[in-house]
Amino acid sequence: MTLHDREVRGFASDNYSGIHPEVLAAIAAANGGHQVAYGEDVYTVRLQEVFAQQLGEGVEAWPVFNGTGANVVGLQSMLPRWGAVVCAASAHINTDEAGAPERVAGIKLLPVPTEDGKLTPELIDREAWGFGDEHRAQPLVVSITQSTELGTVYTVDEVRAITEHAHGLGMRVHMDGARIANAAASLGVPLRAFTRDAGVDVLSVGGTKNGAMLGEAVVVLDPAASTGLKYLRKLDMQLASKMRFVSAQLIALLEGDLWVRNATHANAMAQRLRAGIEAGLADGSIQGVRLTRPTESNGVFATLPAGVADRLRASFRFYDWDLAAGEVRWMCSFDTEKEDVDELIAAVARETVQG
Amino acid sequence: MTLHDREVRGFASDNYSGIHPEVLAAIAAANGGHQVAYGEDVYTVRLQEVFAQQLGEGVEAWPVFNGTGANVVGLQSMLPRWGAVVCAASAHINTDEAGAPERVAGIKLLPVPTEDGKLTPELIDREAWGFGDEHRAQPLVVSITQSTELGTVYTVDEVRAITEHAHGLGMRVHMDGARIANAAASLGVPLRAFTRDAGVDVLSVGGTKNGAMLGEAVVVLDPAASTGLKYLRKLDMQLASKMRFVSAQLIALLEGDLWVRNATHANAMAQRLRAGIEAGLADGSIQGVRLTRPTESNGVFATLPAGVADRLRASFRFYDWDLAAGEVRWMCSFDTEKEDVDELIAAVARETVQG
Amino acid sequence: MTLHDREVRGFASDNYSGIHPEVLAAIAAANGGHQVAYGEDVYTVRLQEVFAQQLGEGVEAWPVFNGTGANVVGLQSMLPRWGAVVCAASAHINTDEAGAPERVAGIKLLPVPTEDGKLTPELIDREAWGFGDEHRAQPLVVSITQSTELGTVYTVDEVRAITEHAHGLGMRVHMDGARIANAAASLGVPLRAFTRDAGVDVLSVGGTKNGAMLGEAVVVLDPAASTGLKYLRKLDMQLASKMRFVSAQLIALLEGDLWVRNATHANAMAQRLRAGIEAGLADGSIQGVRLTRPTESNGVFATLPAGVADRLRASFRFYDWDLAAGEVRWMCSFDTEKEDVDELIAAVARETVQG
Amino acid sequence: MTLHDREVRGFASDNYSGIHPEVLAAIAAANGGHQVAYGEDVYTVRLQEVFAQQLGEGVEAWPVFNGTGANVVGLQSMLPRWGAVVCAASAHINTDEAGAPERVAGIKLLPVPTEDGKLTPELIDREAWGFGDEHRAQPLVVSITQSTELGTVYTVDEVRAITEHAHGLGMRVHMDGARIANAAASLGVPLRAFTRDAGVDVLSVGGTKNGAMLGEAVVVLDPAASTGLKYLRKLDMQLASKMRFVSAQLIALLEGDLWVRNATHANAMAQRLRAGIEAGLADGSIQGVRLTRPTESNGVFATLPAGVADRLRASFRFYDWDLAAGEVRWMCSFDTEKEDVDELIAAVARETVQG
Repeated sequence: MTLHDREVRGFASDNYSGIHPEVLAAIAAANGGHQVAYGEDVYTVRLQEVFAQQLGEGVEAWPVFNGTGANVVGLQSMLPRWGAVVCAASAHINTDEAGAPERVAGIKLLPVPTEDGKLTPELIDREAWGFGDEHRAQPLVVSITQSTELGTVYTVDEVRAITEHAHGLGMRVHMDGARIANAAASLGVPLRAFTRDAGVDVLSVGGTKNGAMLGEAVVVLDPAASTGLKYLRKLDMQLASKMRFVSAQLIALLEGDLWVRNATHANAMAQRLRAGIEAGLADGSIQGVRLTRPTESNGVFATLPAGVADRLRASFRFYDWDLAAGEVRWMCSFDTEKEDVDELIAAVARETVQG
Repeated sequence: MTLHDREVRGFASDNYSGIHPEVLAAIAAANGGHQVAYGEDVYTVRLQEVFAQQLGEGVEAWPVFNGTGANVVGLQSMLPRWGAVVCAASAHINTDEAGAPERVAGIKLLPVPTEDGKLTPELIDREAWGFGDEHRAQPLVVSITQSTELGTVYTVDEVRAITEHAHGLGMRVHMDGARIANAAASLGVPLRAFTRDAGVDVLSVGGTKNGAMLGEAVVVLDPAASTGLKYLRKLDMQLASKMRFVSAQLIALLEGDLWVRNATHANAMAQRLRAGIEAGLADGSIQGVRLTRPTESNGVFATLPAGVADRLRASFRFYDWDLAAGEVRWMCSFDTEKEDVDELIAAVARETVQG
Repeated sequence: MTLHDREVRGFASDNYSGIHPEVLAAIAAANGGHQVAYGEDVYTVRLQEVFAQQLGEGVEAWPVFNGTGANVVGLQSMLPRWGAVVCAASAHINTDEAGAPERVAGIKLLPVPTEDGKLTPELIDREAWGFGDEHRAQPLVVSITQSTELGTVYTVDEVRAITEHAHGLGMRVHMDGARIANAAASLGVPLRAFTRDAGVDVLSVGGTKNGAMLGEAVVVLDPAASTGLKYLRKLDMQLASKMRFVSAQLIALLEGDLWVRNATHANAMAQRLRAGIEAGLADGSIQGVRLTRPTESNGVFATLPAGVADRLRASFRFYDWDLAAGEVRWMCSFDTEKEDVDELIAAVARETVQG
Repeated sequence: MTLHDREVRGFASDNYSGIHPEVLAAIAAANGGHQVAYGEDVYTVRLQEVFAQQLGEGVEAWPVFNGTGANVVGLQSMLPRWGAVVCAASAHINTDEAGAPERVAGIKLLPVPTEDGKLTPELIDREAWGFGDEHRAQPLVVSITQSTELGTVYTVDEVRAITEHAHGLGMRVHMDGARIANAAASLGVPLRAFTRDAGVDVLSVGGTKNGAMLGEAVVVLDPAASTGLKYLRKLDMQLASKMRFVSAQLIALLEGDLWVRNATHANAMAQRLRAGIEAGLADGSIQGVRLTRPTESNGVFATLPAGVADRLRASFRFYDWDLAAGEVRWMCSFDTEKEDVDELIAAVARETVQG
């Protein structure tokens, strides 16, 4: 029974959206009969082929429930008990996982402040030291988010500079790809160009924000970088019994071009929103708004005049990003429609000029 | 795209089955539009009402991904860092969760050998001692599984005897209800009769084995027994972003009678299987089989003559339970059909007499 | 300033005693001047040579603070995050470490009930199964205590049978040697005979109960069995800054024969106590006492008539072992004097006959 | 047997020194006879009185082995499983405990960069937000180090400003007092003035760097701020069996004025060193040295011309502090002698002018 209004959409997060119809159809298609539980089903087998198409032969994909699970299980498989992870201070693993890396996996994070959510070799060096000193948590992995929590995207060269630097230090590189499809769509290159081919070792691939109901995967690009995923996924409580339905969703996204269609659309809606705001600022129909960050994927960040955010929220749900700075975040999703964007732009105009 | 044969079913586990059509329809009905992520959606709100119908006012339901997650999050919310859990040695938390209670939640288990998977006050006392001694992990919770891993079911009085004894010792009682529907169907009483009304404090309610795609809930029956679930569910990586789809499944099961219909059917199929075996043994058409445990829910346990299990497995998937003893487990599910059972009985006859 | 009566001794535990004068002298001798902290001092270097004398070339000794620390750090170094330890249900790691193995090190214990505190290959097999199954915590180490918590001692052949069996299963063997000196004194063989030469992989060597102020060591007998001790000792909070004083104590015990002198004396006092009780039982001067376990090291276990234990405790401190069974434990120490033992025997006679 | 040169001292750390003779005498005085293990001895009872003298009635002191142990056990007792700790990025808990807070205690740290190792209300606010949001590790404790890792000292007013701010946010305040004696000596006020009376809730009191062999204490100043220390100390492997000897050391330091004598001396030696360097820079006998931080306790930080540090280390052991910046740290101890300092000053002169 439907309890909500299917026509209401907002700009809060790409996980406020539902299931893409093709993904839902894939769940239905995987239904009926019995399949071996816990990942020995034919859908999970097929998922391996799908990832091999995207990322080349030899990769291993381990479906899990959610993004925190993917990151924690993947990182744990890359680290001994004394390992630490250099990450941006703004990284989801540092700010939005409630300490799961530390508490569940015993991982120490070494966060580095950044301008734009992106690490660089120089920034990594601020925490990548003390190798061999038992007093220091050993910095053995660099984790980067693609696209970042701030809506920015690492170029292929930027990723490669990081992996080369990290590997030169004996460190491994993890990529949190909760929004990896948006990054690929933004860069206009295949998934493997900025992951496997650029030297990334282990990857979290997000399905949920890309149109799945729920489902992510830890994808091991270099098997030498990861140990024990079979056991870790289970003991970290991320092993689905009816895994066929998680795998079927990821297949639906990644087998064809649904993943990139969805991401391209979300990114385009963000560009439309940004362009509308910029046009409004240029012609004076919008005032006092500042776009605070580049729009390289599906999010737009802005500071608004006092009171505007709350008035806008009467109609459109979205989050404060930096409350002290008055900065908000507008996220677009696979199902964001042009009309949604245009209404938001009109409302911003209305509230900033008349307000 | 369907990759498997929808007509093949076996007796391996109730999580080899798929999604009940009514549950799948509920997922579809919850789709479309935006809903607040992470549990502030209307479906999760509605789920509270559904649980209140089943268990009375004042209960709190926290949807999670899987059974291990439900148990670990629930138990962790009941215990200080120095707490321990008295459980049957055969409990799922002890044998099949890869050490998640210990590793993720820092919980010490105090397993007690049992005859039939069921604890009693006397058995609890074997480990419920040493209160106040800091050398001993403090036994502060008793966990029982209903129905048990051995297919047995606690009566209402047996549950009450345990909760009264535990409460008298200052301990709390947790129930792992991964198959709670089968227990209710077996007892023929409402859910609350052997849970809340019998003194259970915190409950794991299983949806997956009852016909869901995936979804369980930690249900707090006595709010004084549990602290911090909001935070623990997140840090234990069991917080779904698109939670509406987990809640919608549980609503589909529990709002009406689907949960008990499914369980009643699965239990009946197990009884049919047992009756068929017993009849075969009586008339000699089956030989050398011993039914090793009572069939009180949806599983049948038996020892088979040498070689029979492997020959049967050519046609029907199922698991060894105690390899050393030659004991196997046949599980029935909501979608097990009479013909499936009858074919298995016939095959057992064929293999044990002719084999 | 001395606050206690130096003439009072009891039978509670070998850690109620103080510091052997030769150990205290060694602490004083290591004092003065500066030494590198955290284990790069000359005493810790010397300790390596002392252990090489006792156990052969190639062993590594890692001083730690206490027995729980030695066990947990040592076991953690032997196990991946998914590992489990088969141990006797009566093992100190299972019963008296407050869950530290589980909580600090994320280790699952697989306890096996035993008659006498000693594992056997057959008993190990009760839990050593499920290799490769991610649902089961992987049983990768066997831990045995020598001498056991019940005062019994594994023979050289018994240890070897366990290590051969465990190694054959791909498991490693850990020995909790909190009272290893008492075992060696009891067996009358060198330390290495029942440890390294018998196939033990990693060892906890106890100093505290052998006459030290505090100090134990994790000793790696097979370097292939242990990884990362350097880091684990630190992160498990067992790295002493002024380590020279811990090492000096262990040197004082192990360099010459102090360790075996102390243990031989403690064992002899236990034998004297047992013999006195037995003689009293034989001649009727003691009644109603039952010696419940063999006295193979420095502890005597007995059941006493009702009320006797409490009356005895007016003069001699000791512990109940199994309260339900009325069983008490009398431990002897390096500083237990014949007069102490004789007074206890006389008191038992007095309380059981006149009482 | 003495293996080292008792006349060699350096400037590496205050834990390179040995045991103050009065502390060693106290260990000897506590020896002999039996005392209840695990803290029920008369010395640990007496220690409570000693702390009450220093800090007022109602405080509880829990002796532990080392500073990391004191910090981790104390912090863990202040936090639910979802808690986080705001600390200076330079805090020992963040940089030198190998991740023990995260790995052993499941605590997330929220480090804040500082100028001088000292937090302020404004700096705390950078991480003290997100209360009630389950995605964010809940910032429930502020931890400050007194004296800091950079040799600076919080004034009484600075501490009070922090505790008032933290308490206003519903947070508690922990003080890492590994060198608390040096802070008290520097401030010239009683211990309680900048701890209990200034609103600190839980304190780590360091003995080791103040002249003990080993021994620290978690001291609870506000019992409402800490739960379960009895159990946590044990499960965190910080419970000494022969605790009388740890307590006796702390009594020896704190009962009279030994603690402040030792600290005053160490601080004075640091001032002498600083003054000598400054005088040399003034008269040209020392060149190219820059004193990088205020000398408020027992450490002097300086940058040296290239090559000088290594040449000095031929005679005096000390550590690089910031290798990239060429900064070194010279620590003074209770046993640092004027001649040691004067020789270092002369050597710096020799190496920077002639070098």
